Amino acid sequence: MSDTPATDIPATDMGLVVVGAAGRMGQTLIRAIHTIPGARVIGAVERADSPHLGKDAGELAGTGRIGVPISADPLPVFARADGVLDFTTPASTVEFAGYAAQARIVHVIGTTGCSAEDNARIEAAARHATIVKSGNMSLGVNLLAVLVEQAARALDADDFDIEILEMHHKHKVDAPSGTALLLGEAAAAGRGIALAGNDVRVRDGHTGVRKVGSIGFASLRGGSVVGDHSVIVAGTGERITLSHHAEDRAIFARGAVKAALWARGRKPGLYSMRDVLGLS
Amino acid sequence: MSDTPATDIPATDMGLVVVGAAGRMGQTLIRAIHTIPGARVIGAVERADSPHLGKDAGELAGTGRIGVPISADPLPVFARADGVLDFTTPASTVEFAGYAAQARIVHVIGTTGCSAEDNARIEAAARHATIVKSGNMSLGVNLLAVLVEQAARALDADDFDIEILEMHHKHKVDAPSGTALLLGEAAAAGRGIALAGNDVRVRDGHTGVRKVGSIGFASLRGGSVVGDHSVIVAGTGERITLSHHAEDRAIFARGAVKAALWARGRKPGLYSMRDVLGLS
Amino acid sequence: MSDTPATDIPATDMGLVVVGAAGRMGQTLIRAIHTIPGARVIGAVERADSPHLGKDAGELAGTGRIGVPISADPLPVFARADGVLDFTTPASTVEFAGYAAQARIVHVIGTTGCSAEDNARIEAAARHATIVKSGNMSLGVNLLAVLVEQAARALDADDFDIEILEMHHKHKVDAPSGTALLLGEAAAAGRGIALAGNDVRVRDGHTGVRKVGSIGFASLRGGSVVGDHSVIVAGTGERITLSHHAEDRAIFARGAVKAALWARGRKPGLYSMRDVLGLS
Amino acid sequence: MSDTPATDIPATDMGLVVVGAAGRMGQTLIRAIHTIPGARVIGAVERADSPHLGKDAGELAGTGRIGVPISADPLPVFARADGVLDFTTPASTVEFAGYAAQARIVHVIGTTGCSAEDNARIEAAARHATIVKSGNMSLGVNLLAVLVEQAARALDADDFDIEILEMHHKHKVDAPSGTALLLGEAAAAGRGIALAGNDVRVRDGHTGVRKVGSIGFASLRGGSVVGDHSVIVAGTGERITLSHHAEDRAIFARGAVKAALWARGRKPGLYSMRDVLGLS
Repeated sequence: MSDTPATDIPATDMGLVVVGAAGRMGQTLIRAIHTIPGARVIGAVERADSPHLGKDAGELAGTGRIGVPISADPLPVFARADGVLDFTTPASTVEFAGYAAQARIVHVIGTTGCSAEDNARIEAAARHATIVKSGNMSLGVNLLAVLVEQAARALDADDFDIEILEMHHKHKVDAPSGTALLLGEAAAAGRGIALAGNDVRVRDGHTGVRKVGSIGFASLRGGSVVGDHSVIVAGTGERITLSHHAEDRAIFARGAVKAALWARGRKPGLYSMRDVLGLS
Repeated sequence: MSDTPATDIPATDMGLVVVGAAGRMGQTLIRAIHTIPGARVIGAVERADSPHLGKDAGELAGTGRIGVPISADPLPVFARADGVLDFTTPASTVEFAGYAAQARIVHVIGTTGCSAEDNARIEAAARHATIVKSGNMSLGVNLLAVLVEQAARALDADDFDIEILEMHHKHKVDAPSGTALLLGEAAAAGRGIALAGNDVRVRDGHTGVRKVGSIGFASLRGGSVVGDHSVIVAGTGERITLSHHAEDRAIFARGAVKAALWARGRKPGLYSMRDVLGLS
Repeated sequence: MSDTPATDIPATDMGLVVVGAAGRMGQTLIRAIHTIPGARVIGAVERADSPHLGKDAGELAGTGRIGVPISADPLPVFARADGVLDFTTPASTVEFAGYAAQARIVHVIGTTGCSAEDNARIEAAARHATIVKSGNMSLGVNLLAVLVEQAARALDADDFDIEILEMHHKHKVDAPSGTALLLGEAAAAGRGIALAGNDVRVRDGHTGVRKVGSIGFASLRGGSVVGDHSVIVAGTGERITLSHHAEDRAIFARGAVKAALWARGRKPGLYSMRDVLGLS
Repeated sequence: MSDTPATDIPATDMGLVVVGAAGRMGQTLIRAIHTIPGARVIGAVERADSPHLGKDAGELAGTGRIGVPISADPLPVFARADGVLDFTTPASTVEFAGYAAQARIVHVIGTTGCSAEDNARIEAAARHATIVKSGNMSLGVNLLAVLVEQAARALDADDFDIEILEMHHKHKVDAPSGTALLLGEAAAAGRGIALAGNDVRVRDGHTGVRKVGSIGFASLRGGSVVGDHSVIVAGTGERITLSHHAEDRAIFARGAVKAALWARGRKPGLYSMRDVLGLS
């Protein structure tokens, strides 16, 4: 195995590093890169205590040998990369953002749970790194949120009622889903109101007539449903429904690769998936 | 206007009396009969204090003059009728059932709220009258309930989860809808369990994993939706959805007319909409 | 009945003239105005040979007497109106646009089938009249078209396939519906292509794999469905569906009234429903 | 590796042989058995020229080593099995049915394309083997077909129109899908008519009004959709929709395992998935 796998990459391929490469999401990222033209895995990073160090990242992910050993040392890998895909932890992400800034490369961040301080450090790194950060990397969900915001802005709250429905598998332990709340925030933003105080979470028994301007939620649970979301905007005599259906969790990985390809060659800064979609 | 409008009815047309003919549902019944081949309004009954006595029932309902004045005296009208359509009150319905038994005709009852005593008296009348009684006269909803029961019986509760979703207009003041509960009862019956104790009415916050064998409900409210119901049966890797969509409230009237046409010529007894559908 | 019904209109109510007032759409417009706050019927115009001249426009439409007789003379009626609602014929619409320009009022045009010459004359009238013109006056359909165009622009044709599905009642004699084609045009516009040559109208037998970038259509017919449209944008692992469901044809009338209220007080010009929605 | 892996099976586990064990469906079957309580792989058979002979069937399928080598000799494997799962070719299936009859065990057949002669030989084998055979092993699709037949029988063709919609991934090369046609056959059977001559495959341009009693089809193609089917039964003012959504192709394997568990201990004969569902 060569230690300089990046040298023979065609000019048109983007060389990507996957951090957390042996984890479930890391492996999904490696498989996603494998299926998307224009991108290629050139590095795979794990923690120093990972039992997978030295193994071939492609073999571990099930795509077959790709000549990229899993390494605990990000610096030399970042140095020869065009971008980094990162669904790890806030502490690791902040560290990787610093390295990405040094290497002046793309850093796609799907990590959740960052504190205000973490975000400030990521923003600082974005002076030199081209960072795309989002709590949900699915192209479809991000697009849906933009469309929901526009629909909520265009149609009067006096005339149109907004309801948000989600369905997930029987193992999900909370409700509504994070994505349902994200869509609710988009609807509220379109109307220029806060979601808190205008949301209706529960309907059972005597509910009274629907409050004008409220945003309702409902959650279904069953089977192995990966994630369905619908935003219903119901007026007198007509209804618009904006829905997203996820077939598998790999859409988050594919969205991250798409974000990296979009960010390549752009000037440093902190971008969102709305920028990637050209809708910001 | 002739006082013997029934004499020139073709042999193939069923002569129907609408009781409560000046009310909202009575007018809807008159319009429904107007659009369905094989049936004809030959009588219209109201209470003695109705301001509409003597008016033409068709004119009041908006179908144009039909030569049937609204009368407060049911007996002579029942005497020349083939059937009665009745969405009135329990007390009136019990009285009309007696007259229908005397006249040995069809009595279609969509009245709700009957007590055990009322039902006993209706059952007694069914020795001589051919009675079809149901809390929901829609052909579609009754069919859906039968299909839901069969699906619930055929698929193991260990493998398939049942969820019931309904949406109604913004003015509806309670949840879940009566029809959603009816469908839940059908699902429970298919599984040989009681709905009470196995229903999940609310999901918000930390819910834990879905309880095996439970039946979930969710309610949406908005716009002018007449009534949508879906029963979702979700297993590993596949999902069946059985839905009913109501466009207007006239489906209950049409179902009642269909029930009357079905009952014509059948022997006296107490029938349900499942009998009308040939699915009992 | 007063011949100056407009004098007692409150300052906040917009006085509207309905042309073609005795026709099906004219009556629907009168009923729609009746239910929307801020607007009032102050004139009703029909052709000189109409059998309804002199009748009360509200009584004919079923809202009860409103003190507005149907007249064959538009000029005095336009003179005291704030706006005109017009779903008539191209020839009449061109004439009415001229009168609206003279009166410097709002002219909402839902008339279809205008020639290039008709449109040029309407555009000329828009130097003095505030005209809103659209082939489909439904707020929901117009909003959906905007959202479809954006979705088609944001998502790569290589990765996402667009399909358009519509369902209408059993009496509809052509396919796909005009609205389905309008949505197809919006999708094509978002992608920067022409719909013609990229549409797939029929799938039966051996179709081969789906052509990248094509836009598929499918039509269902049955029952009394007023009009359902869905645009499905399907990628690998995820799908967005943008749908419109019409409950009744009055949504076109309501949209026209909303357009008139939006246009009141705006400077002369030719506007579309996208302007009314704030999405142009 | 022991050559008698079946000896330590608990009394409650059904010992299953997978034929065609190294193929795509064979591997899916092995994974399905792995996830379903009460069943266990005890044999794996491939053709004599397979490059996988001798390999562990579980390891090849990705479930981890199960101590079952892939063998070219079915007889000794069938001799110690309770049942066989078979999605191979008609010629192989006929041969395996003979062995299953000798061993007097369960034979679940998902093989398609059998000739009348093949079917006659399978029927002969069913004198001693307990055979479940279906062209589609999904529990959900089979249940849906039963429900569609009942709905079509219960609702008059004069009043309710039947439409069948399917969506599949962009690589599918024919339309409508086999399952859509199967559902169409079920609808036609419910109405007591033949599908041929009553189906409407295409709607484009001037179609005229819908023909009473016809059954319409429409096909959508896009993305990676595994398979969605809806049967819409549309009347005046109401609509029933019966749908099946497949998330992954493993549902056919799971249905086959469920069929085997159902068949265990039943007397020899030729059964269908309707028997398994208790709906025949």
